[in-house]
Amino acid sequence: MSARPENYSTHRLDLLEDPDHGIRVPITQVLQDDAPDGTRTPPFPVYRTAGPGCDPEVGLPSLRGGWIIERGDVEQYVGRDRALADDGRGAVRRGEASAEWRGARRAPLRSSAGTRVTQMHYARRGEITAEMRYVALREGCDVELVRSELAAGRAIIPANVNHPEAEPMIIGRAFLVKINANIGNSAVTSSIAEEVSKLEWATRWGADTVMDLSTGDDIHTTREWLLRNAPVPIGTVPIYQALEKVDGEANALTWEIFRDTVIEQCEQGVDYMTIHAGVLLRYVPLTANRVTGIVSRGGSILAGWCLAHHRENFLYEHFDELCEIFARYDVSFSLGDGLRPGSLADANDAAQFAELDTLAELTARAWEYDVQVMVEGPGHIPLHLVRENVERQQELCHGAPFYTLGPLVTDIAPGYDHITSAIGATEIARYGTAMLCYVTPKEHLGLPNRDDVKTGVITYKIAAHAADVAKGHPGALARDNALSKARFEFRWRDQFGLSLDPQLAEEYHDETLPAEPAKTAHFCSMCGPKFCSMRLSQDIRDTYGDAAAQSEIAQAELIRAGMDAKSREFRESGGTVYLPDPSLPVGSGDEG
Amino acid sequence: MSARPENYSTHRLDLLEDPDHGIRVPITQVLQDDAPDGTRTPPFPVYRTAGPGCDPEVGLPSLRGGWIIERGDVEQYVGRDRALADDGRGAVRRGEASAEWRGARRAPLRSSAGTRVTQMHYARRGEITAEMRYVALREGCDVELVRSELAAGRAIIPANVNHPEAEPMIIGRAFLVKINANIGNSAVTSSIAEEVSKLEWATRWGADTVMDLSTGDDIHTTREWLLRNAPVPIGTVPIYQALEKVDGEANALTWEIFRDTVIEQCEQGVDYMTIHAGVLLRYVPLTANRVTGIVSRGGSILAGWCLAHHRENFLYEHFDELCEIFARYDVSFSLGDGLRPGSLADANDAAQFAELDTLAELTARAWEYDVQVMVEGPGHIPLHLVRENVERQQELCHGAPFYTLGPLVTDIAPGYDHITSAIGATEIARYGTAMLCYVTPKEHLGLPNRDDVKTGVITYKIAAHAADVAKGHPGALARDNALSKARFEFRWRDQFGLSLDPQLAEEYHDETLPAEPAKTAHFCSMCGPKFCSMRLSQDIRDTYGDAAAQSEIAQAELIRAGMDAKSREFRESGGTVYLPDPSLPVGSGDEG
Repeated sequence: MSARPENYSTHRLDLLEDPDHGIRVPITQVLQDDAPDGTRTPPFPVYRTAGPGCDPEVGLPSLRGGWIIERGDVEQYVGRDRALADDGRGAVRRGEASAEWRGARRAPLRSSAGTRVTQMHYARRGEITAEMRYVALREGCDVELVRSELAAGRAIIPANVNHPEAEPMIIGRAFLVKINANIGNSAVTSSIAEEVSKLEWATRWGADTVMDLSTGDDIHTTREWLLRNAPVPIGTVPIYQALEKVDGEANALTWEIFRDTVIEQCEQGVDYMTIHAGVLLRYVPLTANRVTGIVSRGGSILAGWCLAHHRENFLYEHFDELCEIFARYDVSFSLGDGLRPGSLADANDAAQFAELDTLAELTARAWEYDVQVMVEGPGHIPLHLVRENVERQQELCHGAPFYTLGPLVTDIAPGYDHITSAIGATEIARYGTAMLCYVTPKEHLGLPNRDDVKTGVITYKIAAHAADVAKGHPGALARDNALSKARFEFRWRDQFGLSLDPQLAEEYHDETLPAEPAKTAHFCSMCGPKFCSMRLSQDIRDTYGDAAAQSEIAQAELIRAGMDAKSREFRESGGTVYLPDPSLPVGSGDEG
Repeated sequence: MSARPENYSTHRLDLLEDPDHGIRVPITQVLQDDAPDGTRTPPFPVYRTAGPGCDPEVGLPSLRGGWIIERGDVEQYVGRDRALADDGRGAVRRGEASAEWRGARRAPLRSSAGTRVTQMHYARRGEITAEMRYVALREGCDVELVRSELAAGRAIIPANVNHPEAEPMIIGRAFLVKINANIGNSAVTSSIAEEVSKLEWATRWGADTVMDLSTGDDIHTTREWLLRNAPVPIGTVPIYQALEKVDGEANALTWEIFRDTVIEQCEQGVDYMTIHAGVLLRYVPLTANRVTGIVSRGGSILAGWCLAHHRENFLYEHFDELCEIFARYDVSFSLGDGLRPGSLADANDAAQFAELDTLAELTARAWEYDVQVMVEGPGHIPLHLVRENVERQQELCHGAPFYTLGPLVTDIAPGYDHITSAIGATEIARYGTAMLCYVTPKEHLGLPNRDDVKTGVITYKIAAHAADVAKGHPGALARDNALSKARFEFRWRDQFGLSLDPQLAEEYHDETLPAEPAKTAHFCSMCGPKFCSMRLSQDIRDTYGDAAAQSEIAQAELIRAGMDAKSREFRESGGTVYLPDPSLPVGSGDEG
C-alpha cells in the first residue's frame, strides 16, 4: 500500500474520531507557522476527499463492509454472468478486456428478499446508521440533521452496498456544496490506466463524487478498476453502456438490455445512475425550434428511440421496476435532464420545464420505494435566469437535491467554459443547488486530460466554497479568514498551504521572487521591498489595534462628529491614534 | 507601419462609418461559412479595442487631433520642464531613461484660460462632439443617449486632449460593460519593452482601458511609450510616481510634489487618474481591527502620511484645485477606494462605507467643475454582499460610473483569483457596475506576464459579456446565438472564430481530433464518430422544424391534453411528428 501523497509539505493526514461508534474520518490538517508576535497558530483542518491512499492494482480496503453486514438485511448471491460484450466489441474480438481487473472480486450483495437497504429507508425508520454518523462527523453537524434531511429526501448519501470502499458523503442543501468530476474514455481516445489516474487526481484535488462516462471499449472493466479504487461515490449513465451493447444503434435499445446493464452496474457497486426517464415522447417536438436542440447525449438517445418507435420512453414506463432494483442495492437516482438547454437561447424554455415537471413526479415515485434521488439541472443559462432554475426545482421536487452542470452564463468562450460555468455554478449553488458537476476547459472541444481535470476540480471547489460562504454555511468563512490572516502576516508558506492549489501558488510566487528568504520577507512582488501596503497596514494596526478594540463606540462617534473635538476626547480616553510608534517606516511622528 | 495582427484567420478589420461627420470606427468582422443547407451566414461584427495597428517606435496616428483643435477652445503651450527625477533614481544616475522615447513629441495642449474642455462640459451645454458620435457608432446606440448620460454624470468618455491617439470609448451603466487591464513595472522586475508589449497584447484581446501602475524605474518614459501606442484610454495612480520622487518615503510627500506629478501626467496625455482623496484621517482607526487592514497601496500611502503628519489627506484638502486642473485637460477622476476590503472578513465594513460617503461628496464637487468622474470599488466581498456595494454606490454617487476590482468572492484560491474575482465581477456588473478592473492569476503572488495578461483580459471579457446578457443589453445575446448556431451546425471554424480566444479553442479541439477533416466532421471528440447528440438533435430538428414553427399552438395543446388524441389531430393538420425521415441514422421508421 502506497499512501496517496499529500497536497503540500505542510499538509498532514489526520483523523476525526467518534470513538463510541468506532468511526474515523480522514481529514487534512494544514500546519501553520507562528504569528509574527510569537503566538501559536493552530493547524487548520480541511475536508478531505482523497481517501486513505492505495495501490491501484489492489484497490482500497472495505471501509463499510462490516457496517453493511451487521445490519443483517443483505444477502450475498451469485451475480449476473459477466459477458464479454459488457466490454464492447474490442473485448469480444480479443477474448478479454484490455487490462482486466485482477484484484479481489466479491460476490455481490443485495437486500434480502422483500427488504430495502437505502439510507433513506433507515432514516425514515428513525435509525441512525454508521454512514450517517460518518457524514455528521465529516460535516461537523448533528447526526439528527443528517437523518432528518435524508428522511425528508432533501439529502442523499449515495452508498451502494457493493461499493464498501467509498467514504460516506452527503449531498443536500443543508450541507457543504459538493462537486462532481466527470471522467471516462470515449471511442476516440484514452485508456483504463489513464482513467484510474484521473480518478485519483480528481479526488486528490477535491472531487466529492466522480462520474464514469465511458463510451468506448472496456467499459465494464474500466468501471471495475474505478470502483475498487474510488474513495468517493461513483456515478454512471447506464444508457451509454447499453448503447454500446447494441452497436450504437439507439433504436435497437430495449428495456431488457437496459435493465441487464443496470443490474450489472448495481452489482459492481455504482452509487448513483443518471436515468433520463423524463424525456417523454410528447416533449420532443418542443425542442425542434431550439438553437441547439437536444444536447444531452442520453436525452438525444432516448428522444431518438421514442421517435423511431413512436412509443413512450421505456425508462419512464419501467420506472417502478428501476425503483425496486435500486432499493435492493441502495443506488441513488440522478434524474437526468435530457432536455436541458445547450445554449443561452434555449434556457428556461418549455421543453426544459416540461421535463422538470416529470422529474418531480418521478422523484415522488422513487421516494415511495425509499430510493434516494437527486435531480439534474442545466447547462447554459443567462445569469439573470439562473436562480429561477433552482427555486423551481426545489419547489416542484420538494427539496430533493439539485445537481447541475455549471450552468454556463455565456456561450462565447470555448476553452474557458470552466470559468463561464463557475459563474453560473456559484449563483445556482448560492440559492440551494447541492452538487455541481464540473466543467473543464475542454468542454465543447475535446476530452479533458489530467491538467484539465485538476483545473475543473479546483474551479468548482471555488464555486462550491464561494456559495457556502454566501449561504452563511457554519464555519465556511474560517478558511478564508485563516488564509487572509496568513497573507496579512506575511506567512507565505501558510498562505500557500491553506490555498486550494498550494503548488501553483508557490510556483507563481517563485516566478517573481524565487529566493527562499522571500517566503518570509515582509513584502511581496507587487510593490517590491521599498514599499508594501500590507506592511504599512500592519504597522497601523500595531498602532491602533488595542485602543480601537477598546473603544469602538468612541470611533463611531469620531466619524459622526468630525474629528476635531472628539479626537482629543478619544486620545484622552487612552487611544493612541495620534501617537504613532516612531519605529514606523512611514510616519516618523514629526507632527505627532 | 505594421498592422496589428488579427486574432484569427477568419477575422477581418472593417469600419463602421458615419459619413456625414467623417467618423470611422474600426471593428472586427468574423467571417462565417455557409450553413449546412447552403444559406449564407453573414459576417458577425465584433467590438474592437486593438486599434489600427502601429510600429511601437513611431506610435499611433492622431485620431482626435483635428476634432480637438476645431473646437477652438485649447491652447498649445510650453509644458513643464521634464526632470530626470521623473524617471527615478536610476535615470538620474545614468543621465537618461533606459529606452528613451524617440518618436514625435507634441507641445502639450490645455484649455484656453477660463474654459473647460471636458466631454461633460460639452454634453451639459447640449453639444454633440465627434467623440460622442464615435462612441454612439461603436455602441450601436443613439448619440443623444451618449450625450444625456454624459451630462448627467452617469457615463464618462476618458479623453485627455493630449492623448489624441486613443479611440473614444464610453464607461457607464447604460453601455456595454468595459474592462481594464493593469500593467506596469515594479521595483522588482520588467522593462519598458515588456510593458508596451503587454499594452498591445491586452488591447488585442479586448481591454477597453489600460492602467499603467509602474512603480519602478523609468516611470515617465514608460508612460510616454504607452500613451503614444495606446488606442485605448490610459489610467494611472499618480501617487505611485510622486512617492518615487521622494525616494519612497510616504511622509515626505507634499501637495506640491503631487501637483507637479499630476501636471506632468496631464501633459503626457493620461486619460484618467486614481485619486485617493477619500482616505480621511478620521477613517484610519476604523481599519485597525480588520483582518487585512488597508490593502490599497495608494490608500496605505495616504493613511501613513495622515498619521505621520496628524493632518488631513492633502488630496482631500486640495481637491478643488485638482478639479481645476483636470477640467483643462479633460482628465477624468477615478476616485480611489483606498480603504477597500482586502479580505472577505473586512467587506462592507465601516471604513469602506465611510470612505464611500466621502467619494460621493467628491463626485458632486468634481461635477461642479464639469470634470468627469468614476468611482472605484472593491475588492474582496462574499457573493451575497456584492450587490449592496453597487446599489449603495449608485445611490450615493447619483449614478456616477462604478469601477470595481473584481470583487473576489473567496480568499482561498491564490493562483486562481482571475476566477474567484470574475464570479464577483459578473455579479456586480449585472447590477450596474460600468467597468471591471481585471485580476490575473498572479494576483497576490507576483507580477503578471503576457500569458497572465491574456488570461485576465479574456476572463474579464467573459464577466463583462455575461453581465451585458444578464442586464438584457440590446444585442448582447447575438454573439452567443451566432456561436451556438455554429456549434449546432458543426461549423467548427466559425465556432472558433466567434469565440473570445479562437486560437486556444482550435488548439484544444486539435488535441483530441487533430485531423483537418474533423473541423467539418459531424461529430465531436466527446462522443466520437459513432454517436453524436448534436447530430441527432439536428436530425430531430430537420424532422420537426417546419411543422413546429407552423403550429406552436398545436404543440402546446399536445402537451396539455396528452398525446394520443391530439397527436392524430396534429399529424392530420400537416405535422410530421410521427413520420420521421427514414434517412435518420437513428429511427429507421419501422413503427412510423
